[in-house]
Amino acid sequence: MKARIGDEVRDLRAVWFDNGKVMMIDQRELPHKIEIVGFDDHMGVAEAIKNMTTRGAPAIGAAAAYGMCLASLSGIDLDRASKDIKAARPTANDLFFAVDHMYALLKSGSDPVKAADGYADMIVDKCTKIGEYGSSLIKDGMKIMTHCNAGALATVDVGTALAPMRKAWADGKRFFVYASETRPRLQGMQLTAWELGQEGIDHAVIPDGASAYYMEKGVDLIITGADRITANGDFANKIGTFDKAIAAKHFGIPFYVAAPVSTFDFNTRTGKEIEIEQRSEKEVTEIYGMRIAPAGSPALNPAFDVTPAELVAGFITEKGIFSPKDIRKVIDDE
Amino acid sequence: MKARIGDEVRDLRAVWFDNGKVMMIDQRELPHKIEIVGFDDHMGVAEAIKNMTTRGAPAIGAAAAYGMCLASLSGIDLDRASKDIKAARPTANDLFFAVDHMYALLKSGSDPVKAADGYADMIVDKCTKIGEYGSSLIKDGMKIMTHCNAGALATVDVGTALAPMRKAWADGKRFFVYASETRPRLQGMQLTAWELGQEGIDHAVIPDGASAYYMEKGVDLIITGADRITANGDFANKIGTFDKAIAAKHFGIPFYVAAPVSTFDFNTRTGKEIEIEQRSEKEVTEIYGMRIAPAGSPALNPAFDVTPAELVAGFITEKGIFSPKDIRKVIDDE
Repeated sequence: MKARIGDEVRDLRAVWFDNGKVMMIDQRELPHKIEIVGFDDHMGVAEAIKNMTTRGAPAIGAAAAYGMCLASLSGIDLDRASKDIKAARPTANDLFFAVDHMYALLKSGSDPVKAADGYADMIVDKCTKIGEYGSSLIKDGMKIMTHCNAGALATVDVGTALAPMRKAWADGKRFFVYASETRPRLQGMQLTAWELGQEGIDHAVIPDGASAYYMEKGVDLIITGADRITANGDFANKIGTFDKAIAAKHFGIPFYVAAPVSTFDFNTRTGKEIEIEQRSEKEVTEIYGMRIAPAGSPALNPAFDVTPAELVAGFITEKGIFSPKDIRKVIDDE
Repeated sequence: MKARIGDEVRDLRAVWFDNGKVMMIDQRELPHKIEIVGFDDHMGVAEAIKNMTTRGAPAIGAAAAYGMCLASLSGIDLDRASKDIKAARPTANDLFFAVDHMYALLKSGSDPVKAADGYADMIVDKCTKIGEYGSSLIKDGMKIMTHCNAGALATVDVGTALAPMRKAWADGKRFFVYASETRPRLQGMQLTAWELGQEGIDHAVIPDGASAYYMEKGVDLIITGADRITANGDFANKIGTFDKAIAAKHFGIPFYVAAPVSTFDFNTRTGKEIEIEQRSEKEVTEIYGMRIAPAGSPALNPAFDVTPAELVAGFITEKGIFSPKDIRKVIDDE
């Protein structure tokens, strides 16, 4: 991803390895400051995952892989390092997967840096392919809407929902992106708009409730990411996605979901089986630690919602674009 | 409306006259503090309208009426006072209407306090009737959703969308209200949730994007206010209303609009003719003066959206509840 630091435009990843250190963009400082931090031991990386210096499941996976790399380079016991890093976040599957993946490679004698770089490159490669397939949907002059952040910051580089936009813009297509701010945590405003701004892609932040207003005025394409896609094509994503998908259907606007094949969970039959995390009400009632709600008024804060397959025009994956009906067949072909 | 001040529960209006002074709840301090302020001259009232100590078109009208009352009691020239008060806000029709109404009454020798109280009582009386008709829609155990603030604070007392809830709760019905926070200005969180809390009505604040999530779980009734209703039944209301109406249709949830007959504008044929105010992007990109968006990312901030008549189950007015098709006939009967 591009990041403007002073007068310089650098090409950065969310996480990378340089000169013996694991480097990260400190995402807690965004969008106000681009701060790059480095760690020379695996415990520092574990702490950075825990305190959300880096975030987004694929980026966390890559950070974990680099943490294992550091442990190996320093001669730390790999069982010990695995335990330390896995303890950083409780629920990120990518974290556990990446640690186990690296553990196996390191035990079989792989080069630590090459193995961790390979893990990160694999993620970026999938995102690049998602960008290539997805950019075919984007035409000059389009108005595109997205929600939350499914960008480079979450996936090491390129992103999922933002990948087709990056590719199309790089190919010279010109379009406009509505970035829905995504309350309560404002990832659409603070991360997606930041990434689009860094790339020079025309965009504006809108309140989540302005979606129907702008769809009626003319939105041509909606692309979001997904946290989990079930066997029937239902998918979980950031709260507010479902509202947009319903409105998109009302206006006849195609709604696409960009995600790597690894997001598909064929062990879960439908979205009804997905349990939705309820997060702290303080994310709604406070901003930067300041209470904005009335004393005594409770708030509800479901982190995700589930959009049914019938509202999805297609899934943009690294294997191509598939309708909800076709996804099973494609993945069974693997 | 009820307001808990210390251990005492008081029955307050947004604006009233007491002991030679125009009294107001300072709405700029809500929801954190209930501050009551008093003015003993019409210029003080004009300033309070201007700086949004009181707000909401009907409440502004009542404040203006009381301002004219003060001017008359002090022997100020009424032409002069009319001009001073009308200059307070540029676009509030109720402000101009109330000043002219009071001017005519005072010129014809009406008692100033009785005339102004009469104006405020007329608004409250309409809201009370809206509450009586609307409460018939509310059954024990229901889950109700609302958006923005169409409450007592905006209408002197009782409210429009909140009137049926107040009446039903007072009648002993028990239900639960989802108050959608209403970005960017958070009137749902900061005013509606505050009013519901003061009345002891069960409620929770939700992010605007959590509407479809909770509708799917089971919402029985949606009631909002309206800023303007056109001849065909389309209506303008706070941004985010249209999104909810579309989702309500998707789930088959009845969507009602509560407003006095004076909100109907039969000179405007359809909602397409309504011009939508674009407000400052700072309402989106800043909170309490602090920038929350990336430097250089623009934001769009339409204040209202227009919901088409076909998404409306009925209009709750002081004359009864009418479908969009029936409204013309009823008002022509007047």
